[in-house]
Amino acid sequence: MDSEALGFMHDAIPFWGNLTIEQEKNLVHAAAIKEFEAGDTIHAGEDDCSGLFIIMQGRVRAFIISETGKEITLYRLLERDICLFSASCIIQNINFEVMIEAETDARAILIPTLTVNTLLKQSVEASDYMNQLMASRFSDVMWVMEQVLFMSFDKRLAIFILEQANFEGSDTIEITHEAIARHLGSAREVVTRMLKYFNDEGMVELFRGGLTIKDRKKLTDLV
Amino acid sequence: MDSEALGFMHDAIPFWGNLTIEQEKNLVHAAAIKEFEAGDTIHAGEDDCSGLFIIMQGRVRAFIISETGKEITLYRLLERDICLFSASCIIQNINFEVMIEAETDARAILIPTLTVNTLLKQSVEASDYMNQLMASRFSDVMWVMEQVLFMSFDKRLAIFILEQANFEGSDTIEITHEAIARHLGSAREVVTRMLKYFNDEGMVELFRGGLTIKDRKKLTDLV
Repeated sequence: MDSEALGFMHDAIPFWGNLTIEQEKNLVHAAAIKEFEAGDTIHAGEDDCSGLFIIMQGRVRAFIISETGKEITLYRLLERDICLFSASCIIQNINFEVMIEAETDARAILIPTLTVNTLLKQSVEASDYMNQLMASRFSDVMWVMEQVLFMSFDKRLAIFILEQANFEGSDTIEITHEAIARHLGSAREVVTRMLKYFNDEGMVELFRGGLTIKDRKKLTDLV
Repeated sequence: MDSEALGFMHDAIPFWGNLTIEQEKNLVHAAAIKEFEAGDTIHAGEDDCSGLFIIMQGRVRAFIISETGKEITLYRLLERDICLFSASCIIQNINFEVMIEAETDARAILIPTLTVNTLLKQSVEASDYMNQLMASRFSDVMWVMEQVLFMSFDKRLAIFILEQANFEGSDTIEITHEAIARHLGSAREVVTRMLKYFNDEGMVELFRGGLTIKDRKKLTDLV
C-alpha cells in the first residue's frame, strides 16, 4: 500500500482512532488494493466472501437478481463508501444474495474477511460501526422497497434519470432502455413507453443509446 | 419482574453470560413487562423509541405503510423473538419507518433504550448480537422484496395461507380478504379473484370471514 491509499484508509475508517497499534499494524499489513474494470463482478452472492471493500475511485452497484434474470438495483457505492456484503459471511443471519459489480472502472482497498472478523471481536467501536453500516444499507433497501411498492413508475423513472445525471455530472446520459429496466426491476417495453411520454412532454430528448434532460424543473416536479 | 420473566429474559438474551454482575443488575432493574391487546400499536415509526421488546407471548407484526394507507407486512415476531426497530433510535443511519403492532394479545419484556445503549457501548458481545439481529430482519425484508419483485401473486398468496395456518395451528383461518391484501401489499379485489381461483381448484374453501385449506399438497406444489 502506498501512502495515498494509507491516508485514504485512515480517513474512511471512522474507528481508526480507537485501534491499538497492534490492530492498526495488522490492518495495514492485510489490506490490499484491487482494480476493477467497468462490468466486473466484485461480489457474487453468499458463497463469495473476500472482505470489506473501501471504494477509492469509481462507482459500484449492488443488485439482486431473480432465477429468470430479472434485476433490481439496491444502491450504488461511491468514493469512500464501504462495501459490506462482500464480507457478509462475517455477519450471522444474512441469508440473501446480493451481487456487486463495478459500474465504471474502479479501485478499492480490500480488508480481508479474517482481519475484519478479528477486529469485530476485539473492538466495540468496530462492531458498532458495522451496525451503522448495515443500518445504512438496510435504509437504502427499504427506500427501494417503498419505491417499488408505493410509487408509480413515472416517479421512479424520473428519480432514476435525475440521480443518473447527478452521477454522470451531465444532463446527457448514455444508457439503454434495457439497462434502465434492469436498474428498476422493470421490463424494457415499460421503460420505452414511459420515456416516450417524457419525450413528448418535453422533459427529455431521446437519442439512440441515451437521453438528454430538457426540462429539469418539470422532471423534478413529477417527483 | 417475577422469576418467570427473569428466567425468560435470561434464556432469550444470548450475551447474558458475558455481562458483568453490575450490567446484569442494571438490566434486570430497568426491564419491565408490557401487555398488549390484539391490534395495539407497539411502535409507530422513527420518532417512537421505547427500547427492545422481547416477546413472551403472542404474535407481533412489523409492516410499512404508504402515504395513501397501503401496507405490506415485513415479518412477524413470535415468542422469544426480539423486536429491534422499537429501539431504532439507538442505531445510527436507520431512516425508515417501520410500524409494529400486536396481532394477537401479547406480553413482552421491555428493555429501555437507555439501558440498551449503555450495554452496546460496553459489551462487544451485545453489539455483535445487535448486528446479528439486524442482519436477521434485513434478511426477512429481502425475502419480502424478492417475493414482491420476482414472484407471481398466486405463489405469494399460497405461501401466506400456509404460513398463516401454521401460526394458527389450524387449517381454518379467520381473516378477511382486505386483511390479506394489507399483508401482501395488494388490493382486495386481486386477493378475492385469486382466492376464488384457489377455491375453484379445490385448494381452499372460502366462507364469510375466512377460509379452510382443502388440498394442502396442491397448495404447496404451487410454491
